Amino acid sequence: MLKTSPETLVSQLLAGNRRALARTITAVENETPESVEILKALYPHTGRAYTVGITGAPGTGKSCLVTTLAQHLRQHHKTVGIIAVDPTSPFTGGAVLGDRFRMRDLSGDAGVFIRSMASRGQLGGLARTTYDVMRVMDAAGFDIVIIETVGAGQNEVEIVKAADTTIVVEAPGLGDDIQAIKAGILEIADILVVNKADNPMVQNTVRALKAMLDLGHRQRTVAHHGQLMVQTDSSGAPEYDFREVPIIQTVAINGQGVPELAEAIESHRAYLAESGIRQDRHRARLQSELVVRLKEILLKKLLDSVPDETLDDVVESLLARQMDPISAVQFLLAHQM
Amino acid sequence: MLKTSPETLVSQLLAGNRRALARTITAVENETPESVEILKALYPHTGRAYTVGITGAPGTGKSCLVTTLAQHLRQHHKTVGIIAVDPTSPFTGGAVLGDRFRMRDLSGDAGVFIRSMASRGQLGGLARTTYDVMRVMDAAGFDIVIIETVGAGQNEVEIVKAADTTIVVEAPGLGDDIQAIKAGILEIADILVVNKADNPMVQNTVRALKAMLDLGHRQRTVAHHGQLMVQTDSSGAPEYDFREVPIIQTVAINGQGVPELAEAIESHRAYLAESGIRQDRHRARLQSELVVRLKEILLKKLLDSVPDETLDDVVESLLARQMDPISAVQFLLAHQM
Repeated sequence: MLKTSPETLVSQLLAGNRRALARTITAVENETPESVEILKALYPHTGRAYTVGITGAPGTGKSCLVTTLAQHLRQHHKTVGIIAVDPTSPFTGGAVLGDRFRMRDLSGDAGVFIRSMASRGQLGGLARTTYDVMRVMDAAGFDIVIIETVGAGQNEVEIVKAADTTIVVEAPGLGDDIQAIKAGILEIADILVVNKADNPMVQNTVRALKAMLDLGHRQRTVAHHGQLMVQTDSSGAPEYDFREVPIIQTVAINGQGVPELAEAIESHRAYLAESGIRQDRHRARLQSELVVRLKEILLKKLLDSVPDETLDDVVESLLARQMDPISAVQFLLAHQM
Repeated sequence: MLKTSPETLVSQLLAGNRRALARTITAVENETPESVEILKALYPHTGRAYTVGITGAPGTGKSCLVTTLAQHLRQHHKTVGIIAVDPTSPFTGGAVLGDRFRMRDLSGDAGVFIRSMASRGQLGGLARTTYDVMRVMDAAGFDIVIIETVGAGQNEVEIVKAADTTIVVEAPGLGDDIQAIKAGILEIADILVVNKADNPMVQNTVRALKAMLDLGHRQRTVAHHGQLMVQTDSSGAPEYDFREVPIIQTVAINGQGVPELAEAIESHRAYLAESGIRQDRHRARLQSELVVRLKEILLKKLLDSVPDETLDDVVESLLARQMDPISAVQFLLAHQM
């Protein structure tokens, strides 16, 4: 394969070339040296896609829901990018046969692009990489970008929080109705979906979720507050989303409830736009990204200016309890060249 | 209440005063201005306690296990500090009556100190605060410090990873044998406990865990690798723990299996000491702490030297896609006074 220059790749991607899109995502996912330049060049073309995070435990049928939702959006002439960060997702290979058959309807359509991300052995970096892949799909012009995660680990929650609308999927009869709250994901939901709503136990699940929402509402805003304080590091904490969280019942396998889900997303989108919350959240996220990047480059500059032996000596002094961490920081700042 | 000076508080704490210990923990938990000085003064007295993290889903009986384990350790003349970071723990108030009765046996004993931490509304900061409270208990001279968390959210995993020995508790009949792997916590376990081993389904749970350990062993070392790379940021990545993870069956309510669990902890402790892994991990953790503190202070210095309006302008340019994040970082570094 001939090496394409980053400029060529970017202009091909912007022209709608799917092969260029796939190669760009691979570069970004592998954090190749070119990916920095690519992301810089794509940045002016981002900010237009609407992002939807879908998360839920295995067995809730969320991959099937993603498929049916994508089909619905296609019927309404929206292009859809799908990022699957979930080892149990049929998109990433953990499929049962039925899922694969359903997904076939998507794979022949040029208005849909599906990409799975490896989630093993990448702890810490995955949230950022996924965010960069979202930006690539955004620049490629997709109207909607859906991120599907299994929603249990810390990275998955981090990833899905970056979406404009976050959907948490539950299902009756999983034996444990408090899955979501245990994983701390109920509080990040903008929309709750009870899938497999043809199950006779569905009303129990809906009732349990309603009770948890009533209980958790105050805690939810507190948690959001804490999270945003951490993210923005100081000024500019946006307003909080005090909106009622709707509970939508779906049967993804036959499409029942999916138009209602699409409507709920549209209504949340309108709410975020009118209230200015979407803009505030994007601002907070950019602030937080700036802070993370600044911290990393400042640290790199400091460490580059301190001899390795000095650094090793400081750590050994800490280990021997001859110096405490606060004094160690002061010492290193003073020895910066 | 008269205000005690940090010096007095520290010397009282080091002399074994339980009241001073409680007040110090409160100061550290609330991050009062004095807490910085207190932690500096206590640091030389830390590094002696052996720390054990115990985590598991609600219903596994882990609080009962903590109680019985603490009683066992007391019989062997070890002093025990307990930190409960779990809203469902009887230590933090979410107790059923039976638990409270069992815990009474501990509360009259001066060799045991129990402290619960609030885990709501503190996202992001909790792991550090808990680590600081561990240090306070360490300085106060406890032989063993046990940290109990519910092990579902991201903070809990972060907290428990800081322990020398991490124990993940499962129980048969919870309806979902893959709880642990879903939450990504199986891979951090040094010891697995199947509690409620008098349940007839116990062998199913043990078999499922064994199968997952066999499957997950290579992934586990990869994940550890990734995690440590992230934590240490560069040099000094310690060796990995390739040891077999033992599965211990317990019936916490009557103490069955608890001596075996204490033995397994002792054996892991000996392994960590002999292999040098404990020292390597402590070194990596101190490096990581140093990096976090440096990043924060460097960022603060930079932000202090950039006018607020400049910072706001940069963020608005990012939002308007007139500037990309990488150029923004370069711009701010160039405008540092």
